[in-house]
Amino acid sequence: MLGTVLHAPRDIRCEEVEEPKILKPTDAIIKLSASCVCGSDLWPYRGIQAVNGPQHMGHEYCGVVVEVGREVKTVRPGQFVVGSFCLSDNTCPHCRFGFQSSCEHREFMSGAQAPYARIPMADGTLVATDEMPPDDLVPSLLAASDVLGTGWYAADAARVTPGCTAVVVGDGGVGLMGVLAARQLGAGRIIAMSRHKARQELALEYGATDIVTERGDAGVAQVKELTGGVGADSVLECVGTEESMMQAIYCWRPGGSIGYVGVPHGVELDGQMLFFQQKNLLGGPAPVRRFLPHLIDLIMTRQINPGKVFNLEVPLDQVAEGYKAMDERRAIKALLRL
Amino acid sequence: MLGTVLHAPRDIRCEEVEEPKILKPTDAIIKLSASCVCGSDLWPYRGIQAVNGPQHMGHEYCGVVVEVGREVKTVRPGQFVVGSFCLSDNTCPHCRFGFQSSCEHREFMSGAQAPYARIPMADGTLVATDEMPPDDLVPSLLAASDVLGTGWYAADAARVTPGCTAVVVGDGGVGLMGVLAARQLGAGRIIAMSRHKARQELALEYGATDIVTERGDAGVAQVKELTGGVGADSVLECVGTEESMMQAIYCWRPGGSIGYVGVPHGVELDGQMLFFQQKNLLGGPAPVRRFLPHLIDLIMTRQINPGKVFNLEVPLDQVAEGYKAMDERRAIKALLRL
Repeated sequence: MLGTVLHAPRDIRCEEVEEPKILKPTDAIIKLSASCVCGSDLWPYRGIQAVNGPQHMGHEYCGVVVEVGREVKTVRPGQFVVGSFCLSDNTCPHCRFGFQSSCEHREFMSGAQAPYARIPMADGTLVATDEMPPDDLVPSLLAASDVLGTGWYAADAARVTPGCTAVVVGDGGVGLMGVLAARQLGAGRIIAMSRHKARQELALEYGATDIVTERGDAGVAQVKELTGGVGADSVLECVGTEESMMQAIYCWRPGGSIGYVGVPHGVELDGQMLFFQQKNLLGGPAPVRRFLPHLIDLIMTRQINPGKVFNLEVPLDQVAEGYKAMDERRAIKALLRL
Repeated sequence: MLGTVLHAPRDIRCEEVEEPKILKPTDAIIKLSASCVCGSDLWPYRGIQAVNGPQHMGHEYCGVVVEVGREVKTVRPGQFVVGSFCLSDNTCPHCRFGFQSSCEHREFMSGAQAPYARIPMADGTLVATDEMPPDDLVPSLLAASDVLGTGWYAADAARVTPGCTAVVVGDGGVGLMGVLAARQLGAGRIIAMSRHKARQELALEYGATDIVTERGDAGVAQVKELTGGVGADSVLECVGTEESMMQAIYCWRPGGSIGYVGVPHGVELDGQMLFFQQKNLLGGPAPVRRFLPHLIDLIMTRQINPGKVFNLEVPLDQVAEGYKAMDERRAIKALLRL
């Protein structure tokens, strides 16, 4: 079959790869209904994260189960499933506390930018829908696998509560999903930091009440002004750079919370600065599995439409264009038709 | 009057200083019933924090109001009061959110290792007892001003909940108060990390259920073993060094919380490490004012006895011995009789 392989920074290819097989009795094989490119795929694509040999790309997925190992009990061939980019057993203590992304047996999904994928720990990882979803819901269900689940976790970790003021730093797919999540969790005011018109519009559609176009100190000053000098209750940091993290830290009020979900690259936090800023920090790979049943329900009942975050669709053999468009910020997020 | 002045590292003197006067209409003057030396006083005493000119020491206090400025409304001469080491107006947005230690008008108390002290923003800072406390409760009420309030905040920030497993890193006064607070907040298991016999005994008396004597990796391994490999739900970091912070971080489970109240010195946190550790961090100068009414009530009704943390008493003119004994860890905390 064809699959997506990163050979070196900016050298992404759609090429012949081996079809996945059941390797362990807890595996499942799924036929993907669609796949996509993640903002985090751009770290190795841009060479910011090392590429050590050919890397099978893709960790967001949904589709139909075609085969299961003999120990798999909760899903069966023919079912439509969504899973998290973090594979988990969903039974260990960390999973039971709701942190499946720190599962004792955690693995990270790979190789999902392809028509078929092997899902280890299928029972702990996959959630089946009650019925086969209509085609137009596939992009939204795919989004639940990572970009929506991660934006949702940002809002959860930032302790968004009804009526609170939330700031979203980052207008990529995750940031936009963070806006949607903050809205669903009842934030009274949602300030989206974005300087791109198309993204601003989607942020407003997803529930943002204010747009701040400035960055850095000027952006912080504008958030402070919008909040009467106090700062935000909750900040969703959805980028992962030193600049975005510091912007997030200075936007929020003492005792407020930050949820940070952009994988930090080159971020060093000074202990004494954090101490005197007196802010609550929680981040990490999103425990998407915790939120999946709720997110699937919101999507299947058409209460949310996260799939709109895909503003580019390319066939799998043009995956390189998907990466390029996202790298150049021409696309928010690229969907791959298989 | 006599007061305590730090001239240079390890050069601490009890010498003639000016008596405090009302400077602003919101000030009060109190006659201290007792004062004490704080673990944080040791940072400049040891030269780890710069000493720029003579520094009037002391920020923990309780005593009787002798004079108030014309705008002071909530306390009056003759009342016994306790205040926080952080002076606050208790009306600004940060105060109303319960983060008085980040008050828009915050000042840090100084000059309280002396018989009299000026308390700015008296209305926002001081809490009066209903009646004059008996002498034997004075050490406990003094403790509420900082060491107890700070240990309490560590437990609060670490989200200690009934039945949880808490680890306390640091067996100084604040750490021991953290044990007391974790117990009051209902922790089911309290693991105190201490290698000093007298401190271990006090920790056990305050409610510790387990003592871990190892530090660093070995200490972390023992906490992991005690928690079935999972890690603690809540960790109270009560020291402020790189070593203690890392020990705290590795002791707790993903999704667990750390409350850090030791002022960080030389602590740098790597963003990516924090991300993958997936832990919830909240620290800062303790908003003692939030807890004071409750703490005073617990003390006046003799439900807690934090005053036992003072295991050395010296008269004010021997304050240098108080610092020395704490620096050499002969004393947990030194009370100054005035």
